[in-house]
Amino acid sequence: MGTMSVNEIIVTPLKSISVAGGDVLHAMKKTDEGFLGFGEAYFSIIEKGSLKPWKRHLRMTLNIVVPIGMVRFVFVDDEGISREEVAGTDRYIRLTVPPGIWFAFEGLSAPRSLLLNIADILHDPSEIERKDVDIYMNDWKSK
Amino acid sequence: MGTMSVNEIIVTPLKSISVAGGDVLHAMKKTDEGFLGFGEAYFSIIEKGSLKPWKRHLRMTLNIVVPIGMVRFVFVDDEGISREEVAGTDRYIRLTVPPGIWFAFEGLSAPRSLLLNIADILHDPSEIERKDVDIYMNDWKSK
Repeated sequence: MGTMSVNEIIVTPLKSISVAGGDVLHAMKKTDEGFLGFGEAYFSIIEKGSLKPWKRHLRMTLNIVVPIGMVRFVFVDDEGISREEVAGTDRYIRLTVPPGIWFAFEGLSAPRSLLLNIADILHDPSEIERKDVDIYMNDWKSK
Repeated sequence: MGTMSVNEIIVTPLKSISVAGGDVLHAMKKTDEGFLGFGEAYFSIIEKGSLKPWKRHLRMTLNIVVPIGMVRFVFVDDEGISREEVAGTDRYIRLTVPPGIWFAFEGLSAPRSLLLNIADILHDPSEIERKDVDIYMNDWKSK
């Protein structure tokens, strides 16, 4: 996968369209920057104060949208450079995350936030690497 | 688009995977029945008690998943045959809706439910037909 830099993460502002009875929120079009094909879409729920531990994909490009709540993401590349992004209803964006970048995330909203990942490949456990849960996100370098 | 029957709507049970800090919920894989290609994904929020009025698509196949709350859908085909489906966290399914079928939906959960549509084509207003809001969902035939 080569060496990926956190600078290669793409932040794309998304539109919310005001509709009576409940808004319509854009997520992804096949013509958007960052779309590399459709493999699978799935949701992750994240409770307020919970951390989803470090993970990186060796082949998957993630396109992450948070339509409910707010989520803090921390990304770390092979150079040890970190980058933080907050995504959710107050900052409605899509995060395109290339393979090879470590990430973890934290739920900021009660009772929970919801994250959609539109992935370019099917889920495949063999392309996922993980690190222990007990790395504190504000201080990951100290562990 | 020919004449589509409400019998052609596909109901696919989806998996929720229990994960510490918040579950993972399946939505769609490219290998799933009902997947006809990726055009666009977008969310609709629906407040409790609100109705989203009648609409039908002439070309789009919808794949609808409700990861938050519960939503009641009513579908009507050209034969005037209606079908009702409830989808959401208590009945976690995907609804594949072929083009040519009228549908409306109602939010059942407070404060709101969230619906994801994975559509096989890009949004195109010219392929959408609408009916007035004031057709009551429990009694649409009387209007």
